[in-house]
Amino acid sequence: MLLAMKNKGEMKVSEMGITVKKSKNFSDWYTQVVLKSELADYAPIKGCMIFREHSYAIWEKIQEIFNKKIKEKGHKNVYFPMFIPESFLKKEAEHFEGFVPECAWVTVGGNSKLEEKLAVRPTSETIMYAMYAKWIRSWRDLPIKLNQWCNIVRWETRATKLFLRTREFLWQEGHTAHATKEEADKETLEILNIYKDLMENYLAIPVLAGKKTENEKFAGALYTIAVEALMPDGKVLQMGTSHNLGQNFAKVFDIKFIGEDEKEHYVWQTSWGISTRVIGALVMVHGDDKGLVLPPKITPVQVVIIPIPYKDVDKKLILQKAKETLNKLLETGISTVLDDRAEYTPGWKFNEWELKGVPIRIEIGPRDVKQKQLTLARRDTFEKKVVKEEEIVDVGIKLLEEIQNNLFNRAKKFLNEHITTVKTYDEFKKALRKKGGFIKACWCSSPTCEEKIKEETGATIRLIPFEKEEPFSSCVYCGGEGKEVVYFGKAY
Amino acid sequence: MLLAMKNKGEMKVSEMGITVKKSKNFSDWYTQVVLKSELADYAPIKGCMIFREHSYAIWEKIQEIFNKKIKEKGHKNVYFPMFIPESFLKKEAEHFEGFVPECAWVTVGGNSKLEEKLAVRPTSETIMYAMYAKWIRSWRDLPIKLNQWCNIVRWETRATKLFLRTREFLWQEGHTAHATKEEADKETLEILNIYKDLMENYLAIPVLAGKKTENEKFAGALYTIAVEALMPDGKVLQMGTSHNLGQNFAKVFDIKFIGEDEKEHYVWQTSWGISTRVIGALVMVHGDDKGLVLPPKITPVQVVIIPIPYKDVDKKLILQKAKETLNKLLETGISTVLDDRAEYTPGWKFNEWELKGVPIRIEIGPRDVKQKQLTLARRDTFEKKVVKEEEIVDVGIKLLEEIQNNLFNRAKKFLNEHITTVKTYDEFKKALRKKGGFIKACWCSSPTCEEKIKEETGATIRLIPFEKEEPFSSCVYCGGEGKEVVYFGKAY
Repeated sequence: MLLAMKNKGEMKVSEMGITVKKSKNFSDWYTQVVLKSELADYAPIKGCMIFREHSYAIWEKIQEIFNKKIKEKGHKNVYFPMFIPESFLKKEAEHFEGFVPECAWVTVGGNSKLEEKLAVRPTSETIMYAMYAKWIRSWRDLPIKLNQWCNIVRWETRATKLFLRTREFLWQEGHTAHATKEEADKETLEILNIYKDLMENYLAIPVLAGKKTENEKFAGALYTIAVEALMPDGKVLQMGTSHNLGQNFAKVFDIKFIGEDEKEHYVWQTSWGISTRVIGALVMVHGDDKGLVLPPKITPVQVVIIPIPYKDVDKKLILQKAKETLNKLLETGISTVLDDRAEYTPGWKFNEWELKGVPIRIEIGPRDVKQKQLTLARRDTFEKKVVKEEEIVDVGIKLLEEIQNNLFNRAKKFLNEHITTVKTYDEFKKALRKKGGFIKACWCSSPTCEEKIKEETGATIRLIPFEKEEPFSSCVYCGGEGKEVVYFGKAY
Repeated sequence: MLLAMKNKGEMKVSEMGITVKKSKNFSDWYTQVVLKSELADYAPIKGCMIFREHSYAIWEKIQEIFNKKIKEKGHKNVYFPMFIPESFLKKEAEHFEGFVPECAWVTVGGNSKLEEKLAVRPTSETIMYAMYAKWIRSWRDLPIKLNQWCNIVRWETRATKLFLRTREFLWQEGHTAHATKEEADKETLEILNIYKDLMENYLAIPVLAGKKTENEKFAGALYTIAVEALMPDGKVLQMGTSHNLGQNFAKVFDIKFIGEDEKEHYVWQTSWGISTRVIGALVMVHGDDKGLVLPPKITPVQVVIIPIPYKDVDKKLILQKAKETLNKLLETGISTVLDDRAEYTPGWKFNEWELKGVPIRIEIGPRDVKQKQLTLARRDTFEKKVVKEEEIVDVGIKLLEEIQNNLFNRAKKFLNEHITTVKTYDEFKKALRKKGGFIKACWCSSPTCEEKIKEETGATIRLIPFEKEEPFSSCVYCGGEGKEVVYFGKAY
């Protein structure tokens, strides 16, 4: 089939397929998969990218899932301006330090130089909280639970990596204000649990959840909690963060309310976000040497039907059956595409849909028509099976579930195999070098040890697990008392 | 009820309600409605606004409706970078002239001055078409039909008007490429028809559709067609535009394909958009002295249920019935909210939901519980009616339809009453001064007459109707041959 295609299709197989193995050169493999599956492309502007239809459709899926979950909890979507005056960013000192080095600045509007330069939002705490101060007066106005989907700019100077490191990306940022710390704590955790659910049960990416150290928390937060995932190259990717901002911003922006006790209080705030980088994680975790492999619950297309006419004999019958199958699947809510383009060969189409990671391919040839059957091919295992025509819906639903579970379990197994417990710094360095992944070790809680380890190995503390584990050794770096069990890793 | 509320609710009625009549001071009325219904607020940055939850929910509805329609036609959503190098904008001369005076410029990124300044997108033709040139090779790659929802910046120097004139706003922009002019013509018109359908059948705003003159067309287009609506102050608002770009951009960006004839051709392109300004039109066209009036098909909340407890006697029964009614309506797909907040009085709630324009209010008091009935109030006519409990779903569905139709018909009647046919320039000026609206007149097709009229009266040619009408007089300005019947108006 593939050989035949070379002469028929206009594009050569060699141009279409991935020419480097995931296990050989992970970084080149990643870029090839992203470009050739047409998820994204480099923009003709340094550091920027284009979210092509295939990745944007995945992003729309993520929006749909996440919107449903937060709207059920009473959150509302809004849109705030993307221009943030320098003076706003300066109000919270840590926040300013954290973000200013990465800002893009608008200095000219129309024909005039601006009196004050405007940052293109690197995050929206300051602009939003200036309004919260105006809107919040009484306990009756609380909680405020707002979210926005928008573009974000961070002026990266390191090399561009599609989805993972670009100067502009897309995200959602939620910003809530509450009457008490307890409510803010609860919100911070509830959102992280939604992120965990989204990552594990939709993107099929297992994550570890926990708290960040003081060094690693969000600039201006009381504390940050996060979900982190392991990539196949042994590096760790932060998938989502949720911050309890305490009253830091409330004090700076003067966000006060009259409580039921008739006294004035500062609000307690949270902010949280996930970005289009999770699409990068999808590629890395599930993709293979043929291209993308998308989990059924997040893919824009779950099933593709490809007619395989033999000469011109059965063309009509085959197409008729393809359309019947399409309609059956669509009616059940299975997102299905019939690829009946005449200008491409079946082989060319196989390649294209494999590149794009569609979970199930249905082939319909003359034999299938005659025997009232359909041939199914799984994208995750390449297994093929023949099913009776009338069973297609049931089999399809079941198979999509199986693929979803298989992808998660495969990734979960890999994650479990890459959590190494170490007691000494030598073991630590060896595990990091040989295996990567998460390294579980005891830490004396001193930022100095944390920084030294980062300097010397590149690894940072990714998480302090929520369920405190009993320390099992002295501090992996200084040999002092091991106060906390933490997870280290090299992060993207 | 309203008087009683003054003492109970924390906010005074006088603070809540609209204090100026729509017929007395249209502009102040508009601003008050937008602010007090909490559709939007002024941002603490000059010229910018905040889309609060109520307007953003309307925007999400518009997105949902429009996405469904274009996805059915095979369009896909994408996201392109918002930074556009100056040199890109300069490539198409008319386009550059048209947009550069309104650009905001990023000149500094991180700590460095940029080598080339970047415009924050005023529209995305140039950045998108640079990529189209790369992606399009063969007739097999056509058509390309992409759309994006994004933020847009035009550096306005005139006074800010919420939704209508702000430095940043939201829109969708569609960009297609085709093999032939005919296909591009067809696309341009099909999209305009979708806009017309959206405006008339969802937003309940009647529009006139037609072609723009050379003076008024999009900078860089072959021609522009548009839908225009009449506002209650007699001014005209452009609701959506669709451009056939011809091969202008294709030649500049070198977007060529090998046709089935094996020869090289330039593509034919279209672009089209609607923006958040249509939300401003919704406010103006339907709103009244009590606030917003939202058409059922576009409102985030169609029905609000307000329990009216009498002392504490029937509280439980009333709430139980309210919840039953809520569930019945939700099950039918009617978007319903039960406002059971204990901290506000029924009167306060009536005011708030009237301000927000919710089409139907259901009141449930002790008498309603006893008599197994519900009291309904229409937002558009303030009519009240009592219905039997078991009929609520049927009556609700019917009433929503009636309200939708009533709003459209009311606006249509107003539009029809404000199209004035004139034969002389004196009649023209008089009609414009006394009545505003659309003025139908004959025109010699000379840009000079068009410009003179604009200079002297402020009116521009809004549309040349699609169905050519027989000229009925000489040119309304110069007295030369009246070649075309056109619609003039003063535009926002």
